[in-house]
Amino acid sequence: MKPAMTKVKRIEGVLSPVITPFRKDYSPDAERFVRHCRWLLKSGCAGLAVFGTNSEANSMSVAEKRALLEALVAGGVPAASLMPGTGHSALSDSIEMTRAAVELGCAGVLMLPPFYYKGVSDEGLYRNFAEVIERVGDERLQLYLYHIPPVSQVPITLPLIERLLSKYPGIVAGAKDSSGDWSNTKAMLDAFAKDGFDVFAGSEAFLLDNMRHGGKGCITATGNINPGPIANVYRNWRSADADRLQAGISTTRKIVQKQPMIPALKATVAHFGNDPAWRTCRPPLTELSGAQEETLLTELKAAGFSMPGLAG
Amino acid sequence: MKPAMTKVKRIEGVLSPVITPFRKDYSPDAERFVRHCRWLLKSGCAGLAVFGTNSEANSMSVAEKRALLEALVAGGVPAASLMPGTGHSALSDSIEMTRAAVELGCAGVLMLPPFYYKGVSDEGLYRNFAEVIERVGDERLQLYLYHIPPVSQVPITLPLIERLLSKYPGIVAGAKDSSGDWSNTKAMLDAFAKDGFDVFAGSEAFLLDNMRHGGKGCITATGNINPGPIANVYRNWRSADADRLQAGISTTRKIVQKQPMIPALKATVAHFGNDPAWRTCRPPLTELSGAQEETLLTELKAAGFSMPGLAG
Repeated sequence: MKPAMTKVKRIEGVLSPVITPFRKDYSPDAERFVRHCRWLLKSGCAGLAVFGTNSEANSMSVAEKRALLEALVAGGVPAASLMPGTGHSALSDSIEMTRAAVELGCAGVLMLPPFYYKGVSDEGLYRNFAEVIERVGDERLQLYLYHIPPVSQVPITLPLIERLLSKYPGIVAGAKDSSGDWSNTKAMLDAFAKDGFDVFAGSEAFLLDNMRHGGKGCITATGNINPGPIANVYRNWRSADADRLQAGISTTRKIVQKQPMIPALKATVAHFGNDPAWRTCRPPLTELSGAQEETLLTELKAAGFSMPGLAG
Repeated sequence: MKPAMTKVKRIEGVLSPVITPFRKDYSPDAERFVRHCRWLLKSGCAGLAVFGTNSEANSMSVAEKRALLEALVAGGVPAASLMPGTGHSALSDSIEMTRAAVELGCAGVLMLPPFYYKGVSDEGLYRNFAEVIERVGDERLQLYLYHIPPVSQVPITLPLIERLLSKYPGIVAGAKDSSGDWSNTKAMLDAFAKDGFDVFAGSEAFLLDNMRHGGKGCITATGNINPGPIANVYRNWRSADADRLQAGISTTRKIVQKQPMIPALKATVAHFGNDPAWRTCRPPLTELSGAQEETLLTELKAAGFSMPGLAG
């Protein structure tokens, strides 16, 4: 294991699982990607969980994601703000992507379990994560486990976390819980927060609850479009005003999640950024229908939603 | 679209979704792979559906699979006997792997739908397959759709097949139905077999039914260990003896499927081939426990099971 010369500072706060722009021919658009990432950091995001579920990450090859990550760093996005998704169904892809992220100096990586086979054992999942850690062999690695059973169908259980944390303390850094089940997030916090295991809620709906129970922030889809107000809840979670601020951000979320989430985020950025190219999704996802987009935008405008500084 | 100078002859009969050997360090073992493939062809398989679910295909990178495919052809396995799995969750990976298979002269490819996102639309899946076909742009491509909802959780519906078949008639060549639901296979046959759409049952349990309704064979896990008797059912499906032969192959299947399928196939090849290295599975899969393996082997031996010509 390569010793960590300079241990990376851990990210806390609101992270955006950054949506990925594609050109008409479905190729990733690095320039638009860098631009959106810079806007997110300027607008309140503490970090960028690029290559998450909302990024259509699993619709891209490792080579495409490595090129985007290099473009971000070359484009002035600090590696210390990046927590790229590096978990694939293929062990070898997970190793390659994780190594690339560590070598670029990323603050951490957010790792899905391998997600093709269903009903796999914790022993098999343990071997997957342990093999990535051993092969990367670099103590700078800060690994966050990505629990999202509604999509991956493969859960990260508490006993699995316990085993990984006890074998790799300093490297297994935390988790994102996108189960949508607060009792699971609470159980993670109760069991591991005291050991320096940083729990991020998978939605801003649980941001305040997460902070009040020892969590470190949230990694949330709507962070792509509403980063300022969400970061404001994070900064003021101890204030008397916190519940009112939390209610405010929930309005936007409720409007967006009536539509398919990823194309809805893209349509919102396309509209408020005056940049129609953002609407493109890579197959198997599709853009919103005209009617869906009209409902979305009408409701957002009625709620006074805006994206300051986005359009040129 | 590159015109097909020599249209590939379509495979019919019994195909094995070939298990993949890994070394102790989990790297793919090309030499053992070639040896097993040659044994399968010698023992009755009409073709090899390498990189299927039973191959742990989605646990390997595209580069690893391309290297194995090239090793097979270099090792004397006819490309005309190969139907590699080329469907990935990433569109770009599916294009790269499909192109590699066509350029090597493979008889066809067996394509999973993208399997990370759940509940995607037929329009999105159509775009995925159409984009692969257009990008590969080669009329030699024979594309078989891989319907395996119990694992992929993303189905290939009849309307999707209809749309693809009508847009790409000489290229969309058939399907493997691993739904385990005979009524679905029957519906595929009734709707499309007359248009030259070749349906393979996903298990030898449905081999005889499939042949009697216009299907072309089966692609089955147990083809890895029991190819001779299964091919015998295929060759004699019109004979008066067919039902008795079908019952015979079902005995082996019932024993094997009591255990987790993939490690059970590997343990069987390890034991009857006198080659313990075969037991290794790549994470997230794990080998059988000692007790599981003992039950499996005891029951196989009691049933008179053998693998002629496998051990040296």
